[in-house]
Amino acid sequence: MKKERPLILISNDDGIEAPGILSLVAAMDGLGDIVVAAPLHEQSAVGHAITMRDPVRARPWPFRGPSGHVTAYAVSGTPADCVKLAMDKLVPRQPDLVVSGINHGPNTAVNVIYSGTVSAATEAAILGIPAIAFSYCKWGSGGDFEASGRMARSVAKRVLEGGLQPGILLNVNIPDLPLADIKGCMITRQARSKWEESFAERMDPFDRPYYWLSGKFVNLDSGENTDLWAVDNGWVSITPIQHDLTAYSALEGLENWKWGDPAGENNT
Amino acid sequence: MKKERPLILISNDDGIEAPGILSLVAAMDGLGDIVVAAPLHEQSAVGHAITMRDPVRARPWPFRGPSGHVTAYAVSGTPADCVKLAMDKLVPRQPDLVVSGINHGPNTAVNVIYSGTVSAATEAAILGIPAIAFSYCKWGSGGDFEASGRMARSVAKRVLEGGLQPGILLNVNIPDLPLADIKGCMITRQARSKWEESFAERMDPFDRPYYWLSGKFVNLDSGENTDLWAVDNGWVSITPIQHDLTAYSALEGLENWKWGDPAGENNT
Repeated sequence: MKKERPLILISNDDGIEAPGILSLVAAMDGLGDIVVAAPLHEQSAVGHAITMRDPVRARPWPFRGPSGHVTAYAVSGTPADCVKLAMDKLVPRQPDLVVSGINHGPNTAVNVIYSGTVSAATEAAILGIPAIAFSYCKWGSGGDFEASGRMARSVAKRVLEGGLQPGILLNVNIPDLPLADIKGCMITRQARSKWEESFAERMDPFDRPYYWLSGKFVNLDSGENTDLWAVDNGWVSITPIQHDLTAYSALEGLENWKWGDPAGENNT
Repeated sequence: MKKERPLILISNDDGIEAPGILSLVAAMDGLGDIVVAAPLHEQSAVGHAITMRDPVRARPWPFRGPSGHVTAYAVSGTPADCVKLAMDKLVPRQPDLVVSGINHGPNTAVNVIYSGTVSAATEAAILGIPAIAFSYCKWGSGGDFEASGRMARSVAKRVLEGGLQPGILLNVNIPDLPLADIKGCMITRQARSKWEESFAERMDPFDRPYYWLSGKFVNLDSGENTDLWAVDNGWVSITPIQHDLTAYSALEGLENWKWGDPAGENNT
């Protein structure tokens, strides 16, 4: 029996017209058949939002990759919606790989939980499909996806060959460096960090306040095996991530707490 | 020096007018000073979305708890926005506890990652503040938050006394049973599960298709220490959860992969 060519589903959170998804399609060119299902509009920082209260639409989209026409759909929803809808309605068979990105900007440390790019890959991992989220660690606009695309291709090839443990996806962050200056790939953990919020307060023309989210990113982690450290030091960071949020290390301690009897004295 | 009364910040994802948040305010009554910062509109399934492209507003809201007026704000954003904004602009001092809910419907198994209720508590945990997400495991509308409120009070009191390990929050799911039939509290892990999507396809009056998200929940986990098992068997499920998504068990295996040299043969 002839083995079918791998099917690769591609999504992102910057939207179907973003340069990063064009680079990702180019990076996957020739590795398999490609279907793109990406948000019609930018969906940054939507985290793992899904659309439940409104219908979702998928519009065939004229998308040209390096080898010509690519089957593509612009979806009126979030990155997680794109993958859910694609799996049910848009792909001809189960994909062998789902890739998301290339996000313009890093998805490292605490930012992983806000990332729509990662959530698209997470949806695939929940369904047991190997999945990778790619981010190009360039702040601000502009930049060149060349090296990120090359590294994305390299990582995707390895995963197509080797598969991934079910439920695990890879969160890949590529430094903003020319290919020759990238040291290689490092397996990392998510750095401990937080944002110190400082909302900018302004007044509208009717003297009512409104607030813009802004803040200062604080790295709380001095480890040399984190996603932040890797990217800052010229490595491609590859973090295996999962959607089981259980804090296993905390289970035993909490089991020893006295939680009280539902009808007991503690409930007053 | 007189110890200040604890400050408790309350949020949710069902919106500031939902019955569940009123029950949660009642459940916290007398345990400390209370500030409510909750979404103006329902925000279910927004996951960890934050609002970056639009300003956010906070409107003082007339909120009455069992002991009278409660300081409250309706926020034009997501649950994560509510906690971020509250921490920066709305609370008089750092809260001792952040509670979210009481969500109408379970937040167990894979649903945790879609939950706005959990994301509000996660924001607090990132900032090192003890936090608890409460959900009342009633499907559909209606129901009675009485037992959920009693259990929420009990768990919150324990956490105010004992604190939580920094970065860890509790995800609490309370079965839809009268208080007398609840067996007690069980420390659990998040059950492995998935949704099998089946979008309903319809045609609009212009003959263009649109899709409604629906699907079948599949429990992949037969363990008797999971959130699903606990709730199904009459226990309050308490799952410690974290925002570090690193799949630590996968690190070593991946370190042994050959990832290839950035400029090498694998990049073609």
